[in-house]
Amino acid sequence: MYKAPVDQIAFTLRHVAGLEAVLGEGRFGDLSGDLVDAILVEAGRFASDEIAPRAEAGDRRGATLRDGRVTTPEGWPALYRAWAEAGWNSLTAQPAVGGQGLPHMLHVATMEMWNGGSMAFAIGPTLTIGAVEALSAHGSQTLKQTYLPKMVSGEWMGSMNLTEPHAGSDLGVMKTRAERRDDGTYRIFGQKIFITYGEHDFTDNIVHLVLARLPDAPAGTRGISLFLVPKFLVSADGALGARNDVFCHSIEHKLGIHASPTCTMIYGDGRFGDEPGAIGWLVGEENKGLACMFTMMNNARLAVGMQGVAIAEAATQKAVAYARERTQGKAPGWQGAGMSPIVEHPDVTRMLLTMTALTQGARAITYACAHAIDMSHVTDGDEARHWAERASLLTPIAKSFATDAGVDVASLGIQVHGGMGFIEETGAARLYRDARIAPIYEGTNGIQAIDLVTRKLPLSDGVQIKGFIEELKAIARAVAASSDPAFGETPSRLEASLADLEAATAWLGKALADGRQAEALAGATPYQRLFGLALTGAYLAKGALADAGDGRRGERTALCRFAAENLMAETAALKDRIVNGAASLATARAVLG
Amino acid sequence: MYKAPVDQIAFTLRHVAGLEAVLGEGRFGDLSGDLVDAILVEAGRFASDEIAPRAEAGDRRGATLRDGRVTTPEGWPALYRAWAEAGWNSLTAQPAVGGQGLPHMLHVATMEMWNGGSMAFAIGPTLTIGAVEALSAHGSQTLKQTYLPKMVSGEWMGSMNLTEPHAGSDLGVMKTRAERRDDGTYRIFGQKIFITYGEHDFTDNIVHLVLARLPDAPAGTRGISLFLVPKFLVSADGALGARNDVFCHSIEHKLGIHASPTCTMIYGDGRFGDEPGAIGWLVGEENKGLACMFTMMNNARLAVGMQGVAIAEAATQKAVAYARERTQGKAPGWQGAGMSPIVEHPDVTRMLLTMTALTQGARAITYACAHAIDMSHVTDGDEARHWAERASLLTPIAKSFATDAGVDVASLGIQVHGGMGFIEETGAARLYRDARIAPIYEGTNGIQAIDLVTRKLPLSDGVQIKGFIEELKAIARAVAASSDPAFGETPSRLEASLADLEAATAWLGKALADGRQAEALAGATPYQRLFGLALTGAYLAKGALADAGDGRRGERTALCRFAAENLMAETAALKDRIVNGAASLATARAVLG
Repeated sequence: MYKAPVDQIAFTLRHVAGLEAVLGEGRFGDLSGDLVDAILVEAGRFASDEIAPRAEAGDRRGATLRDGRVTTPEGWPALYRAWAEAGWNSLTAQPAVGGQGLPHMLHVATMEMWNGGSMAFAIGPTLTIGAVEALSAHGSQTLKQTYLPKMVSGEWMGSMNLTEPHAGSDLGVMKTRAERRDDGTYRIFGQKIFITYGEHDFTDNIVHLVLARLPDAPAGTRGISLFLVPKFLVSADGALGARNDVFCHSIEHKLGIHASPTCTMIYGDGRFGDEPGAIGWLVGEENKGLACMFTMMNNARLAVGMQGVAIAEAATQKAVAYARERTQGKAPGWQGAGMSPIVEHPDVTRMLLTMTALTQGARAITYACAHAIDMSHVTDGDEARHWAERASLLTPIAKSFATDAGVDVASLGIQVHGGMGFIEETGAARLYRDARIAPIYEGTNGIQAIDLVTRKLPLSDGVQIKGFIEELKAIARAVAASSDPAFGETPSRLEASLADLEAATAWLGKALADGRQAEALAGATPYQRLFGLALTGAYLAKGALADAGDGRRGERTALCRFAAENLMAETAALKDRIVNGAASLATARAVLG
Repeated sequence: MYKAPVDQIAFTLRHVAGLEAVLGEGRFGDLSGDLVDAILVEAGRFASDEIAPRAEAGDRRGATLRDGRVTTPEGWPALYRAWAEAGWNSLTAQPAVGGQGLPHMLHVATMEMWNGGSMAFAIGPTLTIGAVEALSAHGSQTLKQTYLPKMVSGEWMGSMNLTEPHAGSDLGVMKTRAERRDDGTYRIFGQKIFITYGEHDFTDNIVHLVLARLPDAPAGTRGISLFLVPKFLVSADGALGARNDVFCHSIEHKLGIHASPTCTMIYGDGRFGDEPGAIGWLVGEENKGLACMFTMMNNARLAVGMQGVAIAEAATQKAVAYARERTQGKAPGWQGAGMSPIVEHPDVTRMLLTMTALTQGARAITYACAHAIDMSHVTDGDEARHWAERASLLTPIAKSFATDAGVDVASLGIQVHGGMGFIEETGAARLYRDARIAPIYEGTNGIQAIDLVTRKLPLSDGVQIKGFIEELKAIARAVAASSDPAFGETPSRLEASLADLEAATAWLGKALADGRQAEALAGATPYQRLFGLALTGAYLAKGALADAGDGRRGERTALCRFAAENLMAETAALKDRIVNGAASLATARAVLG
């Protein structure tokens, strides 16, 4: 059973991502290390003791739809309410609307734990919190007053309605339409698909944020507006009124996250209300809906990255526990009586260490991204811009590297279990199934790579990426300067990987500058992976250099060395693919018909 | 819907694996190219038109157990009977027992197709054919006369009973026991788990081959005997008699291959018969059971490799079809109206070409292995030994590389589908679920790697592996000699990968010779992957050099070049991991507690 890795999380937050320094500077007011620890311990308790025990049964039962009503697994509505009542939904929201105003790092750290307990559970709150962010940033005073306090407390949940059958990665072609009404409201008509927790029995009301197109809107993404559409209308005194003209038409039969209802939502077909049309309120300006969505999109992407970290952590815990328990054969050098635990077999050791290194690397990258977000909020001017850019740069890597790691680590986790891994009751299979959606939603990892290469590398004319690589090189130099033989070949390995990153970055920059768009895009995914691997090496080294006083420095150094000497060599292959792979990719396109 | 790739299969058999030359030499009597084609076409029709359409419903319903009886999905028993009646079960069995005596290559080629149609269906016949092989090689005349004709015709199916709860990879610790009886029979007592098609409604009788231990047997793997235990006893005239004391206690709730019942079998608890004990007949000699099993183990491993090829093929077909249909965004250089098909986006092109290259590479490796098996049967003396060694060498690579490719390609297949990939009805998810067992059963891929490094590399004191690498180098030289610019950097890339293979082979040989067993085993899985990748490159090149007169040489050359310039660079990283990774792996072991 998953146990939230509170110590590991606290260590990564403080000594790798940068919280320790920030606490020392007092940038977050009276937030102290003790308070951080207390929050993490309490969240860990809830994730381990309340959420995790309900994950398997939730997966088995799944969510069901009958007569437009979605029923989540037994005990799940109560679980959600207990979670919200404990204040976990309001961690980072502003105090003015009932939030606790804590740094984003704590949101990310707790998100990892909820997802570690059950990804199907955690994805609901993830979207609510995204809706809170969008509404906080762009909603009118009235909308905010009416909806935010209850969405922050968790009394109502939110949903995000973007995708349509023909509009997924490309939202510009969406067809859901909005009509203006004289009273300032709008009527929404259309169909949205893949709406996570679009309908459920956790809360009395659900606040849908819906992208739609006005009749006179420009074509493409510049003609999309964002609307708030509550399931039940809300009267001036906050009481729930009539049912709005929106309902859940069907839910999907999915590979994983079974307990999370994935809904097709129908707006404005006349099932409810006096006249057809779901009543909506504009959020932000007309035709600026996509910009409003992007406000929370980066955070949502990072939140999905946390799902990758969480699944990787859960899969690693499960596999390590099994490999220490299960005996089979005799490993080389095994001196014990009888068969050796399979963890002693070098091939199993390799799988488990790879899982551990990828998990910790993904965690470090995602937390570093959250740290950058926090820093952008507590700084000004150039410094704020620097941190906002850093967060922008790290977001696609955090999302993609962590979610790919989730899939890869969950797959290795099954392999470690042998035949038992294929049996659903073992639980390793659920992680493998759940993990698979994360590289897809909130922008496929291919979309993340395009974003990384075409929008993030050019930030500040390349100054941001150059500066970041320099920081990473400084870590490599610090390892070398430590002269600790336990690091083995880490310094040269890290240096080589960072040189690969630098060369690939330069090549992509040149390709884009030369207008060789297709060539740059052909290398985007390998580049994203290369970046994530290099960061994994650098952050594991940073952690190994840190003196946390917990007596685990030797372990961290050993893991860092393992990653450096076993995983880092892949960066050369990735660089080669970026620099030399595009031509053959273009000519071989014909093979696909 | 899956369509058996008959042309691609025929091409690989003939021009890559080596069938063309053998046909020319008349080694398989009057087997002609036309007959091969006719068989492949007919098998392709059955796989595409009969099996594939039943795969989805079979997955959804799964197999069920009630009162000891297993019910397979509706229509599946009839499907099996139609398949057997068409003669597909008897393809390679000896004519003396009703078989068609065809080369193993045709078995493997048709196995790919059955698995492409439905892996849950094909795994049943796979095990029956394995049982036929073991019985043919080691059974007494009486046993063979009684059982083989009906097992060859498919009237009865077989099952293989090896695994017990504490004995999986290490069969030496199994506890199922056999007692001698005065009439020459034995009584079997014990529990076997993970028994594929251990109970079902396809046939009237099921012939279980069961490993068990005699009371006076030596400890470990040298004390295991093999027994034939029919579900129903068979009288002298071949009629079914009393029910034997064996039954299916439960079936597993699995990640995939839902329609394939995975049974816990109980032997000898007294439920059936006059006295407790399942009646069994010895196959081969007492205490030589594992050797008997190994007779068919290599072929069974190759058969599982075919599952990897089949899943990879099915996933690639599905993804290519979707990517050509689905439009989204505008790819660089897209000149068409509206959105471009996603196949035009470089990142999607890359995924699909990677899937295609891995599928074709895995197919070539498995077919080359089957070819070696066939050659070992039609040659004598040193030549026969050479081919038997080649088959032995290729078997672990064929099993592991193809099944890993199955998982990786199925995962990419989901990614290409975006959100639709996560929806079960799309079918991509089923492939991802089904694929995951293949790297585990018939010896985990880690076990294959140990076998490859410790037993196969030393064959003929290393002469076999050296000779093989020389053959592969000759392919690289032939590409260079072709001076066809369409190959791009293929010659140098191939040469570099083969140099990596050679260096890694030498390093592992030295490590073993020096008694550094743990170091060699630490590199076993990376070595296996390195070998498979190098073979993929070499075999794609061999295919591209072949003149099949089908006008597709340009496509094959383009795909070969893609693989050389995009996938081959990984071999350097793998070699590095083998040669330099073991030390850090050993020191980091402590991280796992």
